[in-house]
Amino acid sequence: MTLKLVIIGGGSSYTPEIIEGIIDRYDQFPVREIALVDIEKGKEKLQIIAGLATRMVQKANKPIVITSTLERRRALRGANFVTSQIRVGGLKAREKDERIPLSYGALGQETNGAGGIFKALRTIPVLLEISKDMQELCPDAWLINFTNPAGMVTEALLKYGKHKRIIGVCNIPFNMRTGVAEILQCNVEDIEIEFVGLNHFVFGRRVLVKGVDRTATVVERLKDPTNQYAPANIVSEGWSSTFLSAFMMLPNPYHSYYFKGADMLEKNLKAYWENGTRAEVVQQVEAELFKKYENKDLEEKPTELEQRGGAFYSDAACNVMTSIYNNTGDVQTVNVQNNGTISDLPDEVVIETNALIGASGPRPISIGALPLSIRGIIQLMKNVEELVIEAAIKGDRERLYQALLINPLVREEALAHDLMEDLLEAHKEDLPQFYQQA
Amino acid sequence: MTLKLVIIGGGSSYTPEIIEGIIDRYDQFPVREIALVDIEKGKEKLQIIAGLATRMVQKANKPIVITSTLERRRALRGANFVTSQIRVGGLKAREKDERIPLSYGALGQETNGAGGIFKALRTIPVLLEISKDMQELCPDAWLINFTNPAGMVTEALLKYGKHKRIIGVCNIPFNMRTGVAEILQCNVEDIEIEFVGLNHFVFGRRVLVKGVDRTATVVERLKDPTNQYAPANIVSEGWSSTFLSAFMMLPNPYHSYYFKGADMLEKNLKAYWENGTRAEVVQQVEAELFKKYENKDLEEKPTELEQRGGAFYSDAACNVMTSIYNNTGDVQTVNVQNNGTISDLPDEVVIETNALIGASGPRPISIGALPLSIRGIIQLMKNVEELVIEAAIKGDRERLYQALLINPLVREEALAHDLMEDLLEAHKEDLPQFYQQA
Amino acid sequence: MTLKLVIIGGGSSYTPEIIEGIIDRYDQFPVREIALVDIEKGKEKLQIIAGLATRMVQKANKPIVITSTLERRRALRGANFVTSQIRVGGLKAREKDERIPLSYGALGQETNGAGGIFKALRTIPVLLEISKDMQELCPDAWLINFTNPAGMVTEALLKYGKHKRIIGVCNIPFNMRTGVAEILQCNVEDIEIEFVGLNHFVFGRRVLVKGVDRTATVVERLKDPTNQYAPANIVSEGWSSTFLSAFMMLPNPYHSYYFKGADMLEKNLKAYWENGTRAEVVQQVEAELFKKYENKDLEEKPTELEQRGGAFYSDAACNVMTSIYNNTGDVQTVNVQNNGTISDLPDEVVIETNALIGASGPRPISIGALPLSIRGIIQLMKNVEELVIEAAIKGDRERLYQALLINPLVREEALAHDLMEDLLEAHKEDLPQFYQQA
Amino acid sequence: MTLKLVIIGGGSSYTPEIIEGIIDRYDQFPVREIALVDIEKGKEKLQIIAGLATRMVQKANKPIVITSTLERRRALRGANFVTSQIRVGGLKAREKDERIPLSYGALGQETNGAGGIFKALRTIPVLLEISKDMQELCPDAWLINFTNPAGMVTEALLKYGKHKRIIGVCNIPFNMRTGVAEILQCNVEDIEIEFVGLNHFVFGRRVLVKGVDRTATVVERLKDPTNQYAPANIVSEGWSSTFLSAFMMLPNPYHSYYFKGADMLEKNLKAYWENGTRAEVVQQVEAELFKKYENKDLEEKPTELEQRGGAFYSDAACNVMTSIYNNTGDVQTVNVQNNGTISDLPDEVVIETNALIGASGPRPISIGALPLSIRGIIQLMKNVEELVIEAAIKGDRERLYQALLINPLVREEALAHDLMEDLLEAHKEDLPQFYQQA
Repeated sequence: MTLKLVIIGGGSSYTPEIIEGIIDRYDQFPVREIALVDIEKGKEKLQIIAGLATRMVQKANKPIVITSTLERRRALRGANFVTSQIRVGGLKAREKDERIPLSYGALGQETNGAGGIFKALRTIPVLLEISKDMQELCPDAWLINFTNPAGMVTEALLKYGKHKRIIGVCNIPFNMRTGVAEILQCNVEDIEIEFVGLNHFVFGRRVLVKGVDRTATVVERLKDPTNQYAPANIVSEGWSSTFLSAFMMLPNPYHSYYFKGADMLEKNLKAYWENGTRAEVVQQVEAELFKKYENKDLEEKPTELEQRGGAFYSDAACNVMTSIYNNTGDVQTVNVQNNGTISDLPDEVVIETNALIGASGPRPISIGALPLSIRGIIQLMKNVEELVIEAAIKGDRERLYQALLINPLVREEALAHDLMEDLLEAHKEDLPQFYQQA
Repeated sequence: MTLKLVIIGGGSSYTPEIIEGIIDRYDQFPVREIALVDIEKGKEKLQIIAGLATRMVQKANKPIVITSTLERRRALRGANFVTSQIRVGGLKAREKDERIPLSYGALGQETNGAGGIFKALRTIPVLLEISKDMQELCPDAWLINFTNPAGMVTEALLKYGKHKRIIGVCNIPFNMRTGVAEILQCNVEDIEIEFVGLNHFVFGRRVLVKGVDRTATVVERLKDPTNQYAPANIVSEGWSSTFLSAFMMLPNPYHSYYFKGADMLEKNLKAYWENGTRAEVVQQVEAELFKKYENKDLEEKPTELEQRGGAFYSDAACNVMTSIYNNTGDVQTVNVQNNGTISDLPDEVVIETNALIGASGPRPISIGALPLSIRGIIQLMKNVEELVIEAAIKGDRERLYQALLINPLVREEALAHDLMEDLLEAHKEDLPQFYQQA
Repeated sequence: MTLKLVIIGGGSSYTPEIIEGIIDRYDQFPVREIALVDIEKGKEKLQIIAGLATRMVQKANKPIVITSTLERRRALRGANFVTSQIRVGGLKAREKDERIPLSYGALGQETNGAGGIFKALRTIPVLLEISKDMQELCPDAWLINFTNPAGMVTEALLKYGKHKRIIGVCNIPFNMRTGVAEILQCNVEDIEIEFVGLNHFVFGRRVLVKGVDRTATVVERLKDPTNQYAPANIVSEGWSSTFLSAFMMLPNPYHSYYFKGADMLEKNLKAYWENGTRAEVVQQVEAELFKKYENKDLEEKPTELEQRGGAFYSDAACNVMTSIYNNTGDVQTVNVQNNGTISDLPDEVVIETNALIGASGPRPISIGALPLSIRGIIQLMKNVEELVIEAAIKGDRERLYQALLINPLVREEALAHDLMEDLLEAHKEDLPQFYQQA
Repeated sequence: MTLKLVIIGGGSSYTPEIIEGIIDRYDQFPVREIALVDIEKGKEKLQIIAGLATRMVQKANKPIVITSTLERRRALRGANFVTSQIRVGGLKAREKDERIPLSYGALGQETNGAGGIFKALRTIPVLLEISKDMQELCPDAWLINFTNPAGMVTEALLKYGKHKRIIGVCNIPFNMRTGVAEILQCNVEDIEIEFVGLNHFVFGRRVLVKGVDRTATVVERLKDPTNQYAPANIVSEGWSSTFLSAFMMLPNPYHSYYFKGADMLEKNLKAYWENGTRAEVVQQVEAELFKKYENKDLEEKPTELEQRGGAFYSDAACNVMTSIYNNTGDVQTVNVQNNGTISDLPDEVVIETNALIGASGPRPISIGALPLSIRGIIQLMKNVEELVIEAAIKGDRERLYQALLINPLVREEALAHDLMEDLLEAHKEDLPQFYQQA
């Protein structure tokens, strides 16, 4: 068997990171072909990335063939692993996801609030098509999805698609573990964080260092705001003593949007007035990155890439693939079907949780009941996600309105309505399911 | 057996209503003694009420003896039914529950938000003492609780008390049914609303008229803002078409605090600037009521009483007692232990639901899974309630902070902290459980 | 609207009972047309019954038209209620269900053991066809099913059919209530038994007389073997003191097959050697009944009919229909979808339980967790039923073998195999789903 | 820290096996002291074992100190690990557990049927005392329980004791894995069997070889009766093709008692008539073993020991202890609290399942819903266990009778009564909880 990896959204500026990850793991995970796939609009970027990727494997002296194509179905044939990092509508769409809520004084973000909801609406149908193709063309291949909102997308595919070999990954748990290792000054390998919850709404219930519970120590040290583990894209000043002592768990950086919303809104508005939306900033960053990538002398991932919010996503993805390939059975944090792991959530939803990763796929470690302090809020967030998924699949405006209203970042009857109307209109082209029958 | 009813908080301005209810139902529910109980501070009011009550039964020519006492334990001996309508700390405390949140730009109310949480903290320990006395002195008696927040209080008693003959009642479902009868122009007896949810967070999932589903009609008519069923104390302009069509259920008036919070806040602030808090308004109204009550010529419940928010509470209570006494087995809406009725909530929590009322107590009609549109928000609200109850019983500041933060009307890390500190300090005297060991 | 009732299996010897029930309830339930439907083989019986039924309504002087037909679909058009009391394969098939297990020294009966399993296999596909016709021809009509095994049949229809207006009824709860009234010497109307469990495996958890718990008294009196409530077809000597005191619940007569199996087997074998199977006895009884029915002078249900095991089935059915028609909302014991009523069983299974019966259908009273003493055995029996239903729908031999093996009346690997092979062969004609693709 | 192991029941004939296990693992699990504890009656055996153990460690040249004592509490002080392999009432009691049921024509065995139930009744109170001592004297120590019935004992301790560091182990999963490795001719390390169920009622749901599903192959090969994995004490001729194909899972040897009961009864009766009960055979074997153990030249575990049914129990125990000590995080099969791992069973019960074993204890891999084919029978068996535990703790005859009656190996009203009376009387001395208040 020749190990073949397909990267959907291969023209992404993040791709060099995953290429580096594959090169670094070549001994345990000997990929022989990497097929980069993108759409017509991304053609130019795709070629730039393909060029850089080819130089990278040559420099590293690995027998990996890099191909690039706009024909997804051709690429999928014979694949063993597929990764997805697409952005339906591009950064222009993200800009709208952010700007329109901000214009109403509401937080919108590509995974949270109204922005995240609309990103899900655009993305889910496209990924469902991809999973359908996989079921037909490479039924044994695993899809490692890190397209955001990763939890909702993974759940939609597992609920509505036939292809079941799907794992969602996120860099946040990875970041948190790395951050905690720094805080405790110990090896990241010795640390296990018991993650409970949902993608971008996950808590670290316990920190174990070589099996010894160090949660209280980490919580105590987090009271010092210089001890943080936030990714580059979330500006956070940390958490109050009261919060940390009351919950005695590790929040994740995205919790700021929910529990420190006023602060976050202020910061986002300020940043917006100064630099435009995060999407606009990112477009700028991307343009510069691609300028670098084009440089024929560049034969490695440039360090600038690490400063983006998504850094380590590809590490998370490469680790999962390597463990499946080698049937390692080590513990990693992934997005998988709940199936009783958390007894307070329905079986068929997707959770972010620790699981053994091996050739038969992920097997989550049982969690049982959620801590009382976070049970309700996690149930609420999952409910929002389920409503969004139904809306995305069926083009159902009622479900969409319900999701917006119930979402803690919207919550107002009139606001939910206005955001729904404006964002539907703004994304009309990328939301055919809402307009087909009108 | 001589049928004896004890009214805890007998000096309340609402008591004439319950007296009237007892008189009206005398043929089916022949109470022979009504013992009015209050505390030292309420002595004067108690006497006024006792006087009025005596005149009322005389006028009605019923052989009911009215007694009044400050000795609760003496009154409880031999009781068959006990009702509770107390207000620990009085309207002065309510004023703080409202004013302090408003001063932070947050909604606080006696059953919602930080105000409701602190009312629960003050009330639960006192009612637990009452239920303990009942277990000792009148173990077969039923406690009909309409002390707010009625759901939380009932849950706390059922979870932490030994006396299990406890039913919580509220006037909201009663109001909604009456309101729907008007909207549909039909007899209230022909209407059944399938209530699902929690006290002050209940939805009408279906409206049946003689068993025929008329939900869509009622929802449609609610789009006309003149069709309302809100009690006197909640100023509401109704719900948008979008909201009503999307949920296809009947919201209750208190939902405005959650889904139309901006509006409600604005209105509450305006009212506050003009007239002070609702508590202050109510103090005024009460003073006037008691002036009337003192009038020796008054031999009936004055009509002004009906204009208060709590109207029909006593109707709800009297109906429950009459059905228990006669083993009627009719359907009423009460607060009882879930015990599987709603499968998405824990067994031991209290829900507001339709139940058969008979001599063996309430037996809820099975509901099953909550509608997807409201599942998460109901789970969240219940979680808040559970945290509050733990805080109230144990004087646990961590639980209290969690409850405040998770509550949708607070939700901000810093605000939760400030409200907690200010309100704890303000209610210090009535919250010994938080200070005993300091 | 002209109220129309269709009786599928109208040629059954039980039909006069249901005719009588309809006549007796005419004032509250004014049926204008009763269409008797049967298959070709039952043509002669159908005509005899139609004749008798016509004489009965004439004698009673009610304006009810009796029709009879072999064309089921024609009859269903315009129906408001449909009852079903069919026997696929006739008494000949029942004879095999009983004889073949007995020949292996095992209990087989038309609702229990291997016999009941095979009756389900034959019956479910036929009733599924009927419910399909109803969905098309009379979508608002209720199917009141008393075809045995009533629980499994009802569950299969609700799981695999589109027509959801289906209620299963059984005479056992009716018998038990009547029997308990006699034991307590009080009016049957004053008695409520809290039934929990499954059809033919239901327990009476509590006996309430006017709301007062009299369970202990009834259990005590059942220790006297003359106090019984078994139907005519189950010879039982009652239960031991040890059993009754340990469970403190009312067993139903069919429990004898499970907890007194040795006794029952002995009695069944003895009866078999003396008179052949119960099926053969019944054939004899039926022949005699039909001789009577033919008599043009007979204008009433003959009393002999009451001595059969199924007596009161039609009372149960008529009560349900009358309450639906009048939206009565009284409590009756029916077979309905669990949907959380018993929290230890899956949502989609059918249970036998107390429910309010009204125009919108049955609404079960919440039960919560099963008593620990019977939880496991009820879960086991339900599991057997679920396996049987899957086997019946899909013609799945693996599921059938599992069901037989897990069934407490079989339980032996080799016996399960032999019974499966022999009974499949014996009923080959009536089990096309197992042979279609062979 | 000096690693100290306490062996309760140190005078058992199995002890040399665990001593060998400790010696073999010395490099990873450097035990420095093994304290053998037994009761007065076992004094002589204890000394023989202590002598042999001392010779074994000397031969192996390991710095392990062997001590022996009758004072349990003294031994427990400072312990890191405690194992338990006691037999309350000794083999004489086991003899009664087997003989009395057989005398009624029923299967009784030390873990199944009435025999297993009574072994639990005798054992649970004693182990509860041990766990109480541990909580006081060595609160951080882990109790590795392999006293049978291991599942029920572990559940009783976790439910009713304060010491929560308790893991139950059994040799059956270990045997099955070894047996499957032989059947598939591959390394045991490469095999993982997904075990679901209860101790002695566990199924192998899937067999993975290096992550690849080989279940169907193993099931196919098990049809050849020479491919077996039964321990020495269960004579089995394997399973029929029908059974294996229908369930498509691996049964465990004890399933023969339930699904091949007639066979097993016949064999047990035959063996009984020839050699007396298994208990009597074992007494004979033990006498011979101890004769060998006394021999001063013996410095190793004699091979005869492996031919007993309990072989590998100590391997299972040593593996668990080694992984806890080293925080290994490998997957082993243990008896732990369910806590949602199997969603069809209550949270607080104990299941036998695969778990990661590390310093923080066992963390089970989530299972979700049980396969439909075995759901009910596992729920039934667990219900029996819960009833037995309640009976054992409270000396409750009602619960005991319920457990016996519901148990598939008893199931008859009269038999349950007779077995209860005879066995209670026979074990009177060891069942003080049933007689204390008489």
